[in-house]
Amino acid sequence: MEDDGQVQKTPVREWRDGAANSRMDSVVTEEPLSISIIEGGLRSNLGVVMRTPGDDHHLVLGWLCGEGLSFSIEEILVEFPDMNIAEVSNLGSESMLGKIESRKTTTGSSCGLCGRHSIEDLLLPDLSGLGEKGGMNPEMIRSLSGKMSEAQPAFKETGGIHAAFLFDKGGELVCSKEDVGRHNAVDKIVGWTLEIGRDCSKDVLLLSGRVGFDLAVKSAFAGIPTVVALGAPSSMAIDAARSSGSTLIGFLNSSRFNIYTGAWRISE
Amino acid sequence: MEDDGQVQKTPVREWRDGAANSRMDSVVTEEPLSISIIEGGLRSNLGVVMRTPGDDHHLVLGWLCGEGLSFSIEEILVEFPDMNIAEVSNLGSESMLGKIESRKTTTGSSCGLCGRHSIEDLLLPDLSGLGEKGGMNPEMIRSLSGKMSEAQPAFKETGGIHAAFLFDKGGELVCSKEDVGRHNAVDKIVGWTLEIGRDCSKDVLLLSGRVGFDLAVKSAFAGIPTVVALGAPSSMAIDAARSSGSTLIGFLNSSRFNIYTGAWRISE
Repeated sequence: MEDDGQVQKTPVREWRDGAANSRMDSVVTEEPLSISIIEGGLRSNLGVVMRTPGDDHHLVLGWLCGEGLSFSIEEILVEFPDMNIAEVSNLGSESMLGKIESRKTTTGSSCGLCGRHSIEDLLLPDLSGLGEKGGMNPEMIRSLSGKMSEAQPAFKETGGIHAAFLFDKGGELVCSKEDVGRHNAVDKIVGWTLEIGRDCSKDVLLLSGRVGFDLAVKSAFAGIPTVVALGAPSSMAIDAARSSGSTLIGFLNSSRFNIYTGAWRISE
Repeated sequence: MEDDGQVQKTPVREWRDGAANSRMDSVVTEEPLSISIIEGGLRSNLGVVMRTPGDDHHLVLGWLCGEGLSFSIEEILVEFPDMNIAEVSNLGSESMLGKIESRKTTTGSSCGLCGRHSIEDLLLPDLSGLGEKGGMNPEMIRSLSGKMSEAQPAFKETGGIHAAFLFDKGGELVCSKEDVGRHNAVDKIVGWTLEIGRDCSKDVLLLSGRVGFDLAVKSAFAGIPTVVALGAPSSMAIDAARSSGSTLIGFLNSSRFNIYTGAWRISE
């Protein structure tokens, strides 16, 4: 475990085959992280993320990227006055609050879709120029599912935590993160790439669960052209991947996978 | 399928055992629903919920309950000027906007935890008076996992949608809902109980996935004293269940389950 705060012990009464006994069980830690922006002397609350503590700096960097608010660690300073409070100072020339305000046509939430009526309105980056035709080997993709379990210590202990993984084009694992929220695990990966300045234009993001709209948007904003999931995609995840020119793969296991968008990147 | 809008067809390139072929696949529909409150002539946007269309009226009723904003269909009128826009008119004497404002001490999001620093601040209802000691049979609980699959038509078709189920104290299924978001499936169940005025004080809520904090809060506000999940609970879900006096059960399958809180309701 990277962080002891990721897992807690709790007493449990277990029923099995008609008999009951008491023991201690490990459960994943879930706590709220409040995120604010400080800009021009004003402090604005952006929202609360329910997350597994640990890697919070990466979480905030990746979250800001996924919301389309900041794509560079040069522009922001993230401080934690309390373990569950993050304050982001905007050091850049462009107003983050202005970006948020310009989206608020009908809603007041801090989600990635706020005030935007269609995927086109999101202005997702165009990733269709990344990668070469047939540049990815299907055997490499198939092999990824076998490389996950070693990088999921908290899942082994709790059975209740999501994970995200970043692989290079050769199928080598470069980063893995676990979190009670699958979107947070992706934010933590993205924040890590921003912090080290990694070029993700040939990388593959692997998800332990399903792919919803939010995850397709986050990976597009992070400039990762290929997303592979063990679970199913939603209709809007497919729409977002198609809109950004990404490759979206679902239902990966050791013998098969489905390509929903961007099949041209994979050799046949 | 209750609603054809729940599932969409999409072309897919499938790799299996080294060979590729094209076919049509079914994926779950995901679309945004914007929720606003109209009160005293003012319209306030509460947020956007990514959901599977269908049962939207129940979704909104249950969502308002889970946010602690309204617990009675007598007080509200929900209208849909567009299929992805819900407008809630507050017909009651108590201000919903006032309830939201009074919580906003540090954050501006519309989540169930906004501005509250601890579970105690949530003022969860006390359900410890519901049910009788040893009133629930462990064999009844164990049997629930076998009663799910018939009530999950969209999961059978897509493999990518969550479900929630309401059972009576005898283990009879009374309601089931599917949605791309597990919290939405619960909101739809709760909205259904509010609409028909069902007394849930002896009911069991069964979840197809894990139990996070949000789901433990939603079931408590709905007055459902027992929550059973196929997956793992998070630490804050256990805290919330303990705080509200609920019974929380995880890792249910046909031979076993774990009781995390409120074991006194189950006979041994």
